[in-house]
Order: sequence, then C-alpha cells, then structure tokens
Amino acid sequence: MSRERLQALREELARQQVQGFLVPRGDEYQNEYVPAADERLAWLTGFGGSAGIAAVGAEHAALFVDGRYTLQAQQQLGDQPIDLETLDANAIANWLCDQLKQGEALGYDPRLHTEPGLALLKKRLGERDIALRPLEQNPIDAVWTDRPAGPCGPARPHPHTFTGEHSAQKRQRIAARLADKRADALWLPNPEVCAWLFNIRGDDVPHLPVALASALLYRDGTATLYLAREAMGEALIEHLNSDVDIVNDKEALFDAAKRHHVSKIWVDPLITNCWTLQRLRALEIELLQERDPITGAKACKNAVELAGSQAAHERDGAALCEFLAELPDAVAAGAANNSFGELEAVELLRSKREQREGFRDDSFDSISGYGPNGAIVHYCVSRESSLPMKAEGIYLIDSGGQYPDGTTDVTRTVPLGEFPEHARDHFTRVLKGHIAIATLRFPKGTCGEQLDAFARKSLWDVGLDYAHGTGHGVGSFLSVHEGPQRIGKGASGVALQPGMILSNEPGFYLTGQYGIRIENLVFVKESERHNGFLEFEELTLAPIERRLIKEELLTEQERSWLNRYHQRVRETLMPLVNEKTQAWLEEATQAI
Amino acid sequence: MSRERLQALREELARQQVQGFLVPRGDEYQNEYVPAADERLAWLTGFGGSAGIAAVGAEHAALFVDGRYTLQAQQQLGDQPIDLETLDANAIANWLCDQLKQGEALGYDPRLHTEPGLALLKKRLGERDIALRPLEQNPIDAVWTDRPAGPCGPARPHPHTFTGEHSAQKRQRIAARLADKRADALWLPNPEVCAWLFNIRGDDVPHLPVALASALLYRDGTATLYLAREAMGEALIEHLNSDVDIVNDKEALFDAAKRHHVSKIWVDPLITNCWTLQRLRALEIELLQERDPITGAKACKNAVELAGSQAAHERDGAALCEFLAELPDAVAAGAANNSFGELEAVELLRSKREQREGFRDDSFDSISGYGPNGAIVHYCVSRESSLPMKAEGIYLIDSGGQYPDGTTDVTRTVPLGEFPEHARDHFTRVLKGHIAIATLRFPKGTCGEQLDAFARKSLWDVGLDYAHGTGHGVGSFLSVHEGPQRIGKGASGVALQPGMILSNEPGFYLTGQYGIRIENLVFVKESERHNGFLEFEELTLAPIERRLIKEELLTEQERSWLNRYHQRVRETLMPLVNEKTQAWLEEATQAI
Repeated sequence: MSRERLQALREELARQQVQGFLVPRGDEYQNEYVPAADERLAWLTGFGGSAGIAAVGAEHAALFVDGRYTLQAQQQLGDQPIDLETLDANAIANWLCDQLKQGEALGYDPRLHTEPGLALLKKRLGERDIALRPLEQNPIDAVWTDRPAGPCGPARPHPHTFTGEHSAQKRQRIAARLADKRADALWLPNPEVCAWLFNIRGDDVPHLPVALASALLYRDGTATLYLAREAMGEALIEHLNSDVDIVNDKEALFDAAKRHHVSKIWVDPLITNCWTLQRLRALEIELLQERDPITGAKACKNAVELAGSQAAHERDGAALCEFLAELPDAVAAGAANNSFGELEAVELLRSKREQREGFRDDSFDSISGYGPNGAIVHYCVSRESSLPMKAEGIYLIDSGGQYPDGTTDVTRTVPLGEFPEHARDHFTRVLKGHIAIATLRFPKGTCGEQLDAFARKSLWDVGLDYAHGTGHGVGSFLSVHEGPQRIGKGASGVALQPGMILSNEPGFYLTGQYGIRIENLVFVKESERHNGFLEFEELTLAPIERRLIKEELLTEQERSWLNRYHQRVRETLMPLVNEKTQAWLEEATQAI
Repeated sequence: MSRERLQALREELARQQVQGFLVPRGDEYQNEYVPAADERLAWLTGFGGSAGIAAVGAEHAALFVDGRYTLQAQQQLGDQPIDLETLDANAIANWLCDQLKQGEALGYDPRLHTEPGLALLKKRLGERDIALRPLEQNPIDAVWTDRPAGPCGPARPHPHTFTGEHSAQKRQRIAARLADKRADALWLPNPEVCAWLFNIRGDDVPHLPVALASALLYRDGTATLYLAREAMGEALIEHLNSDVDIVNDKEALFDAAKRHHVSKIWVDPLITNCWTLQRLRALEIELLQERDPITGAKACKNAVELAGSQAAHERDGAALCEFLAELPDAVAAGAANNSFGELEAVELLRSKREQREGFRDDSFDSISGYGPNGAIVHYCVSRESSLPMKAEGIYLIDSGGQYPDGTTDVTRTVPLGEFPEHARDHFTRVLKGHIAIATLRFPKGTCGEQLDAFARKSLWDVGLDYAHGTGHGVGSFLSVHEGPQRIGKGASGVALQPGMILSNEPGFYLTGQYGIRIENLVFVKESERHNGFLEFEELTLAPIERRLIKEELLTEQERSWLNRYHQRVRETLMPLVNEKTQAWLEEATQAI
C-alpha cells in the first residue's frame, strides 16, 4: 500500500521541485490528537502513535519514533520500504544530509512545523547548501485521493456554570498583560487556548473537546475569532456578543490585524506554526516572541472549575468501581473461550462511563494491559495485540473521561488471581512513592522537578526506577495533557500554583511480566496551617488494590493515609454505585 | 574617606571622558576571593563582602549587594555618600539610565567583566543611546596611590602523590575534546583551571591556593602558560618540561596563538573576561563559545584525590574535635570579663588546625555565630560584631582548611548551656534532612536539583525552610566552592558523577535567636549493590551534637545512621586527638 503512496508522493515532490519532504504527526495547531483529515503520517506509513515524523527522499524514506513506540512502529511498518529510526533532531538531520545533495531542496508544510522545531535542521542543511523550502500546498493532500473531510460539527458555548469566569473577564485580564508588554495584540494559535479564552467547546478532535480555531486578542479586550466552519449557531454568536468578531476564513485574521493597526504582536514561537509567523512578518508586524500567557492562566483552575472536577471525579470513580467490581466475573466467564480480553475490558469500562451524566468521550485511548502488555508503558491495545484475560496475573488499566465539568485520568493495577510474590514488593514501593507525593507540603515557588524524586525514592532504594514522568497537567474539560506544569526529572522552570491539576502516577514495569502504576489526579491548594506553603488534594476516587500491598513496608503515616483515603472513597461513592459494587467497595476499602 | 576617593575617581573619569564607571568585586580572573591589589570595591566603598558591584556617576554613587550582605553593607558604608541598592541586573541598569544622559558614556574595565555579565546593561543603555566604553586603564588604579603590589610568591608543582594524574595525561585527555570540536586551542581563563591542568599551586589569593595564571592548550596537548611573576623556580620548569612554554607577559599568550596558527579557539564566555575576547577577535580568531571542559573534569576526583581528601578530613576532624572539646572551658574562663567571643573561638580553632600536618590556610573566612549572629546566614565576624560567649545558648561554627591533600568545609552547631526547647525540634529536622541526603541512592543522570528537596522535607512538613542551597562542589586543594555540580533549588542541569565532592548542609535560622546548620562533605560513588546507581560517602568526621536531638523525631533508620557515623568518627579520630579530647569524643559519640 505505502509503496504506491510513496510513489505518488515522490511524483508530486518532483512536480513541486523539491527532492525531499517532512511528514510530522501534528496538524497545523500542533494538537496531540489530530482530526482524521490530518492523519497524514498514518496515511503514508500506517504508524498510528501520537509522536513521530517521517522523512521522504528520492530513494529512501524513514520513520522516526521515540523508544515508547519502537515496537508498535515495527509492527505497523511491516515490510514497507520505510526505515525505522530513533526520533532525535540530530538523527533526522543526519539522515537528510545523507539523502539530499548540495543544491537540492527539502520541502515542508509551514503549517505543520514551528520555527524552533526546524531550527537545528535549517542550520545543518544550510551548512551543506541544501535549502529548506516551505510549500504552499501539502504534497500529501495533493495525492491523498480519499482524504476525509475536515471536522464540521458545532462549536458550542461552554456554560458559565462550568467555567466560573466569563470570556469578557478573561479577555480583560489577559489584555492587561498585553499593555504591560506594549503589544497591540496576542496571537492565539490553537483551539485549546481559544476554548479557554472564549469559553467554547466542540468535537473536532478525538478526546479533546474543542472546535478548531485560532484568534487575535486586542489590547482593549476585543478579539477576532477564526472558527473553521461555515455555520455558526445563534447561541454561540449571542454568547460571544459584539466584542468578538467571528470569521470563518483564516485570511480574515490577517485582514483584522491590519484593520486594527496592529504593529506589535505577541506570539509564542513554540506553539505557533511557521506559516503564521511568515504571514505576520510579510505584513511587517513586529513580533514579540514570548511564552503565551494563556497557557499559564488556563492551568490555574478557579473554584468553579475545581468543584466541577470534583463532581466529575465522583461520577467517574463510580463508573470505574463498577467496572472493577464486575471484572472478575467477566474474566471468569470469558476464560473458557478466550472471549474476554484487554479490548473487551476497555469496552466494559466505557459502557460504565457512558451511563454517567455528561460523559462525552474517553479523555485518551485507554491503556489496558494484561500481564506482559502492562509492562509496555504507552501500550495501545488493538484487535491484534489484545491478550485474552484469565483469573491469574496482574492487569493495568489507565483511562479517563471527558465530562463538561471536568476531565479525568486514573490508573489502577489489579490482580486477577495468583501473582508472583515480588509484585507485592514492587506495588508497595510504587504506592509509597504515590503517597510521598500526595502528602507533600512545599513552599510557594517550588517546581515539579524538585518534587519528582519523592515518587521514586522507595524504588531507588532497591536500585529500581521508571522511565516516565511522575505527573502532567490536566485541563478542565480540555486536554488530559496540558502544560505548563509537570512533575518530572527534567527542568520545567514552572512553579506549582494553587488551582493547578496534576496527575500523580509513579509506576514500575517488569518487562515480559507486568506493569504497575497508581495514578490519581490532585490539585494544588494553599496550606491551611502554614502560610506560604502549598499542598495537594486528591480528586480521583477509587480503591487502591489492598491485595498487592506488603503491609510491613508501609510506615504508620502511609498506612493512615491509605485508610483515610479509602474511607473517603467509600463514603463518597457508596451512594453512587450499583448493589454489587457496593459490596465490592465495602470490601475494597477496608482499613489495613 | 570615600568622599575624597570618589572625588579623585570622578576627576579621572572626566580625564578619560566617561560620565560613569562600574566597580565590580571580582578581579580579571573572576575569582571569588581576590588579591589585595584587586580589592577596588573595598577601597572605594569599604564594603568587604564577597559579592557586590558599585556604580559611580557624576553626581551619585551606589553599591549593589544581595540580601545576604544588606546588613554588613549598611554598617560598612556608614554615612558615606553612596546609596545602598539591591543587586539585580535590572536595578543596576535602571540606576545608570537615571544617572547618565543620552550621548554620554559609561566606562568599564574590560578585564573585570564578562560579556554575558554586561549583556543586559549594554542593551538597556543602548536603547537610551548611552555608550558602554571599555577603558584601557582602570581609573581606580590611576588614583589609588597606596595600592598594594600584586602577588609574587612562588608557583609550585603540586606533587603526583596528591594529584594522581600527570599534567601531560590531563592535557592529552582535554586535547582530545578539542579535536572533537575542531578547535585549535582552548583558552584557560583563570588560575583554578590552570592549577588543575598543570598540577601547580601558589599563594596569590586568600583561601585559594593558586598562582595567578591563564593559558592556552593546543590540540596536540602542548600549552603556553602565563604566570604573573618574574621568577620561575627550577622545580616548576622541570615539572612542566618542554611541552609547556611558560611566559610572564600576557601579550605572549596572544603572540603564541598567532605563532601556533590558531584559527578557531574554544572559550567559555561565562568565565572569560571581555578584554580577552576583544583581543582574540582583533586577531581574527574564530571563537567557539561553549562551557569549558576543564571545570567538569576537575570536579570528578580520581582515587588518589579522594584518598587525599579522606586523609585531610581525618586531620581536620581531629582539629575540630579538639576545638569543640576545649570550647566549654574557654567560654567559662572568658565569661566573667567577656574575653572569649566569636573571634577568639575562630582563633582557637585556627590554632588547632595549624598543629595538623600540611595545614596551609583556612579554606574561607570562618562563620562563627553565637546566638542571634548564628541566624545571619553569611555572617562574617569582625572585631566590632564579635559577641562575647557565655555558658548558654547556641553556637554555630562553619569553617574549613586547605591541606595539600584536600580541602575541607564543615559546620557544627553546639549548645553552650541552656537553650530554648524548640531548638531541639529545629535541630532534629535539620538532621533528618542531612541524613536524607547522606543515605540517598539515585540513578546515574540525576542532577542535584532533583535531590535538594529531600534535605528540606522535614522542615517543609512544619512550614519551615532555609534560604540557601543544600550543597556546593568542593575542589581538591583548590576552591572550597567549585562547580559545575550543586544541590539546590535552581536547575544546574549537571548530573552528579562518581568522584564529585559536595557539601551536604541543610540549616534553619531563627532571626534574633540562633542559627542551625549541619554540614558534612561527601563524595559520589557507584553503588556496590545496584548497577547504574550512585550513592554518597561521608568525608567529614566530627560528632553531631546529641544534646540537640529530639530522639522521638528520628526513625529507626535515621538513628542507626547516626550511631554508625558516630562509631566511625570515634574509631577514626580517637588515636589522633589529645587526651582531654579523647574523653570528650567518647561521650560525644555514644549511641542514642
């Protein structure tokens, strides 16, 4: 299949007079999940992971993915004439320097790249006198004959009962930052920042409840909003009122900049595509290149958003408990004919969430890993990979839901029967790390990278670790992965602030045997007892598997945290679950 | 006094046709401690702290210091016509923008500044059309009539028994890095990197056993070494042999670069002064501006250096114990007529160190803080500030020695009699933080900023913290503060590596009452039990005050660490101390 597609693409490249082309995963908004019409990388290579880039030359083609996706990419590439390489800016540059000759040109779609993302490549190719040429039309679009249509579902107002702050207030508060910087306007490059600023949502992207959009905010708090659709509902127009001019033609944004006499514009080059910067420069608008101010504002949830998240987590926790309560019977029933596997587990859990008020979508593709599949950190279950489940071994389920009042993300690890004794040691160490983060008190100004090692210490003590971050930011009915805050080894330079939602998800993975991860969402709040200090409070409500705990490894404080957490889980969820689950919940939350 | 000096300086500035001038603390090598001839800031302002900068305009002058030095600077400035301001690049720029007019020029001595250090100022002044002008002669030197002569003591070979690696080997190993970077030479801008690379030492700078020097290392491992002195001993010339050309004229370094056809040179702009960069550019030599490779190599001590450090720490620990054992009697004897104070304590300790083999100098000005003075983190005791000591309250002593086999740095906090009960809670929390760092096991690749919070957690738990880093690098008979590694809140981006020596010094400070700090030096080593993991091992040997410990706050593991440490201290030091101290040591190291 890809042989013909590669051939067609190479002919188109020849027509456009370039000798190579880059095919990244992202769309023009640098979304993590992209609409079907933007799945160019999957169309060309068959690779469906959430991070990767292909490079196509006249003779060879290569797919670059990071270590998480090596296995998946191998399987999905199969015997296609595409090399598999490790994702790394230098590796891509090396490969392209080998493929292209002096005087030739590498084409790229300027909508799909940022300038910082291309900087190293530009330098390296420049040294070899190889040009990096923006192409007006994406050559894949020219040859992708059955390309799906772009999204065109409705864009909806997101009600004040969920946002807690009117768009006009948000716009005033961000506009004040523009005045500080003496900028005339702020460029909002993507649907997430637009969704927050204008209090709108949509269904254009899998798992991310946004409408494709970009916008310009002016220093007086008015704005021009581009929405990628013809029809705009009355409700939306009324919601945004006359302060926001809605347009459905991207060019109208640049016209608006001219009409508003914008001479200096704030753009964040890390999230704004090259095409936009090139257009703004052509209009001779001065660029103030700084980190965009909305990402930080959006990360700090207000009281209404936090209350919404708590409510969503109660319903989501109830759904997860019903799933966990029914899982053993489902496994037992399916064991004889291998009819209940990782994929069926995802379906059962989804059916439980769908019964809950407001459920719109999973917040990401569930990671449902039985036994050895649980040890693959970013495992994505498919019909081919799905292992049938039996009443033995360990199962890991990482999933979440999108509800209008909040976004959830939770991981639980459960035994389905007998399991190796050392799993209890591993699980308990992961739990100790989880509790260490959950119970921290820390001064204002502390960044996530300063806290990360607390989650790892009990594993480090015995020479173990896990190869992923400890926590990521989570949106409010927005992306399940949002910045700028995180808890990880690498420096973020971002101080944790009240209202930020983070995951707390240490893990441990024994290749070929099992994966363990315990993930709750928490939010940051002021310490009541100690001025100038912050603490976390749990949002996620679901029992943590007691059968996997080696009690003698827990301190008295850790045991007490677990018992208090379980008491809260029990008291909150008991009225919300079915009868079978009530009995299960009673048992699963007993004090240890 | 400074009124006349300011007047003379302003006349000189007028003669050199600039309207302002910068007076930083550092010398042309950016040393932390500087020779007397380079104490220009102290000459002009009277301020003797280790960080600060003065700016002089036609009408006003200001001294900029950070929070550590505000009190000291206030006292030392007295009623001189010099404003005291907070040290901050923007504050300096603001002040100068107020003082200078469009078209005027601010003079600076290009030997005393780095380009990154001046970058912001250059931008800000440039916007106002104020020039930043390098001056050939430092105007202070022109009017400083009784300026001390520069150092001219001997530069000595540092024996192989202490360095463990010949200069030729070091030069080959660094020269290999030059080949990787396609650089023809490396610029060694300061005495510390020269001392390490050429295995030489000297007495040119207080507390730092180096000879003033800079050098050029070529890609073949040969070098040109500039030493700021006329006479070069035979031993030194023989030690360095014909591979190293020694010159005593700075110009000869640039001549050598020409003679060796250096067309691309590796310079680290963070530690190389502007004057050097300007000279190299004038010679049309291409600058490869990257972090210098010697700092990292120097930080990782070899087995000989580590053994030397252990030996030095035994002698230093014995000296400290004799001091601590005699302190109560000295305090009691002096209490009646206030004749024994913080300054006399420093003298007593110094006399103990001087009895130890190889002692050359204190490694920094001892911090000897009794009661409220202990709460001043960077307290520098003087005749005026020295508090007489009584048999009550808490005393903090932070000091170290320079020995040819190692550099030491140790802090102990001791009660002299009755003390407030809450001090035991504070001390024990500091101790818990100290033990948390001491007992860590962590994977290779871990940076100090990932570990810092372990030292603070027990204080954070009760809403407390300390406003300084947890650990700094320490040299091998070199600077007591050396990079690149550190343990602190801010990102260093430097992974800890085997052989690195670090301090472990959490503290707590109760303004107006007392200061607590427990500091040991440790070194990083491979974990014997867990492949790919690192651990710390103690270098410092001295009892930790048991009378300040609230035992019920310690875990069983913490208690056990303390008892094992005390056993090692007792067994190692007992044969090395006088009889009185033996009895004291026996008592001070009893198990709890």
